[in-house]
Amino acid sequence: MQLQQLFVNGERLKQTIEAFADFGRTDKNGVTRLSLSEQDVLVRGYFTSCAEELGMNVKVDDMGNMYATLDGMEAGPPVVIGSHLDTVKKGGRFDGVLGVIAGLEVARTLVDHGIKPRLPVTVMNFTNEEGARFEPSMMASGVLSGKFDKAVMLSKKDTEGVTFGEALQASGYAGDEANRIKEAAAYLELHIEQGPVLEKDNLTIGLVDCVVGMACYEIEVTGESDHAGTTPMDMRKDALFAAADIITELRRKLAVLDSELVYTMGRMNVLPNIHTVIPNKVIFTVEARHKDMDVVREVEAIINGLPEELLECGVAKTRLWGRETVWFDPEICALVEQAAGALGYSSRKIASGAGHDAQFVAGFLPSAMIFVPSVKGKSHCEEELTSYEDCEKGVNVVLETVLAVLAGS
Amino acid sequence: MQLQQLFVNGERLKQTIEAFADFGRTDKNGVTRLSLSEQDVLVRGYFTSCAEELGMNVKVDDMGNMYATLDGMEAGPPVVIGSHLDTVKKGGRFDGVLGVIAGLEVARTLVDHGIKPRLPVTVMNFTNEEGARFEPSMMASGVLSGKFDKAVMLSKKDTEGVTFGEALQASGYAGDEANRIKEAAAYLELHIEQGPVLEKDNLTIGLVDCVVGMACYEIEVTGESDHAGTTPMDMRKDALFAAADIITELRRKLAVLDSELVYTMGRMNVLPNIHTVIPNKVIFTVEARHKDMDVVREVEAIINGLPEELLECGVAKTRLWGRETVWFDPEICALVEQAAGALGYSSRKIASGAGHDAQFVAGFLPSAMIFVPSVKGKSHCEEELTSYEDCEKGVNVVLETVLAVLAGS
Repeated sequence: MQLQQLFVNGERLKQTIEAFADFGRTDKNGVTRLSLSEQDVLVRGYFTSCAEELGMNVKVDDMGNMYATLDGMEAGPPVVIGSHLDTVKKGGRFDGVLGVIAGLEVARTLVDHGIKPRLPVTVMNFTNEEGARFEPSMMASGVLSGKFDKAVMLSKKDTEGVTFGEALQASGYAGDEANRIKEAAAYLELHIEQGPVLEKDNLTIGLVDCVVGMACYEIEVTGESDHAGTTPMDMRKDALFAAADIITELRRKLAVLDSELVYTMGRMNVLPNIHTVIPNKVIFTVEARHKDMDVVREVEAIINGLPEELLECGVAKTRLWGRETVWFDPEICALVEQAAGALGYSSRKIASGAGHDAQFVAGFLPSAMIFVPSVKGKSHCEEELTSYEDCEKGVNVVLETVLAVLAGS
Repeated sequence: MQLQQLFVNGERLKQTIEAFADFGRTDKNGVTRLSLSEQDVLVRGYFTSCAEELGMNVKVDDMGNMYATLDGMEAGPPVVIGSHLDTVKKGGRFDGVLGVIAGLEVARTLVDHGIKPRLPVTVMNFTNEEGARFEPSMMASGVLSGKFDKAVMLSKKDTEGVTFGEALQASGYAGDEANRIKEAAAYLELHIEQGPVLEKDNLTIGLVDCVVGMACYEIEVTGESDHAGTTPMDMRKDALFAAADIITELRRKLAVLDSELVYTMGRMNVLPNIHTVIPNKVIFTVEARHKDMDVVREVEAIINGLPEELLECGVAKTRLWGRETVWFDPEICALVEQAAGALGYSSRKIASGAGHDAQFVAGFLPSAMIFVPSVKGKSHCEEELTSYEDCEKGVNVVLETVLAVLAGS
């Protein structure tokens, strides 16, 4: 049981964020650090040197995941703080890396204060969370959780034709399968929200209780291509008009399901896409996310209930994929909430609409996530921003939670 | 004044259609004969030999337009029958070429019967009507009518970087400007309908009284790209939702304007077009056509009356182009109608929704067009089809009209 509240070093945290951002920093102050790229290999080296400076030992598993561990008084399952160091192309300075730096800053703070933790404290860097170079995203946590097949993942190619396996070998980070994490007292992932909710509500900490479930469909509307000038309106089979009606109908029905439901028609292609020709084909995606899978299933029923034919156009629906809601460990979530409260930070429960390593990790380790506000909700872009102050508060919540786990409370 | 009704030779007409289709015939019985391509040069040679066999003399003007003339008893302004021999890529066997073959078959029929016409009869082939290799379409008739600048047209390039001027020189069909047609007793163009109206009405002859006016706009809707999973519905600026609302609104308002109005949103691009990202930009075209320019102007008022902002997205409208309705010569149209009646063919007045050389020619020669049915309204594709019987009836109407003009009736 701690006697006085510990805080991380905000100035050092700020410098660390910028030091990591130097690996792949873009002209516009974003970061391009694709998984296993030269910059990723360099930042991994920097992470290793930072950890070793603290007396942590660094191991790597067979998927390139890194584990920097500060020994505990007991050998028992570690408290893990982790996220990922890779970014999308022209991404930001915070997505992923903040969760790794948080772990480093927690370890530094413990070392600063001469605290030898009861349990080991491990800072993790998951390989290829973004999936920006090698699809799918959350590849390595997916393999650790058993969701993805390792051999299949090793064979995934980037746009140059290099496989993930080849890139992993070349990076020097193809480690030992025996080093994979199998148990932990807790897994904590601090991440930027990537949405506008905390900022809008003027809150500092997002207490993430789940990663929302989702379903994604493709709708293909098939009409007939005729001359735009010579075909009377009542003799047309206009796939775009039918698609527009479907979109209107879907929006009308989805809008009343639940205020927390989000739904997006993000991709849409019109064929032949010539201004003087009536479209004969419109293909678009509909994806919807909600933490309550019953709501997601209602969405699926609405999509599947679309007519087979509309305005004399055929309407086909294909389910591309879906995922179930992942709920985080209630006890760890409670510790996070208590930590934020003890620190006097404003907070709210929030569902993660985006995917994170933690959603796979939650399958085998007691896990929780903590969000800090994203300015204007932006992420995966160079404008991505979270104030240093909010970053610091987020890391303080991680530290406080780690201490609570260590205290066995 | 003719004493007995003349008819063209249907069997010969059929053979001629297929003989011309051999120049660029595709696997699927369509035709690819781009303007001034090898196949176009070859078909021009064939056309020349057919004309010369009849004792016609063939001239070429500076835009490559060809004039095959059967001398008349008087030198006076000729009766002209014309259209174009070029096609789009993978076009059909009828679009354009039928109007040239019609002229040839009329000349052949006159020669068959030993008729020396009172006025010269000229069969024309206009260069590059389709604009499929060199934009714009109706290029050469546009230059003859003064709508297009010759120097600008000569500089137009195909996708290989070859200019129209270079291709014209290389073809051997860069003739003399003095050969341009300047006056005529009549200009007649037989063409396939390229729409479904005659077939639907079970009629043989379309008495084309005009080429409809039109306006084409581009609508650009600008929202904001945010994460599809993390952005609540009430904080979105979804450009696709706004665009769908605009399309719905436009359709609602345009549907009640006039039953003959046609309107099409043929081209639509969604950006960034990723299923997990809210669209920040949708750009689509709206084009509308009607013979009554007041209706076209109402359409323009509706488009311009769209809100500047919708669902927090910006809405910009740009007029890409427009054209006024071109009315054909009432006297020539009356002769065509009488001809169809005299032959006992079913017919109706019809507006041309597509553009044709005749619309430019009408600016300086008394002109009219005749349509024959397109099976399923298809054109500009390999399935394009008009029955030989309908072709024959169409050419008989041309012959009958030519005879009426020659008779000075």
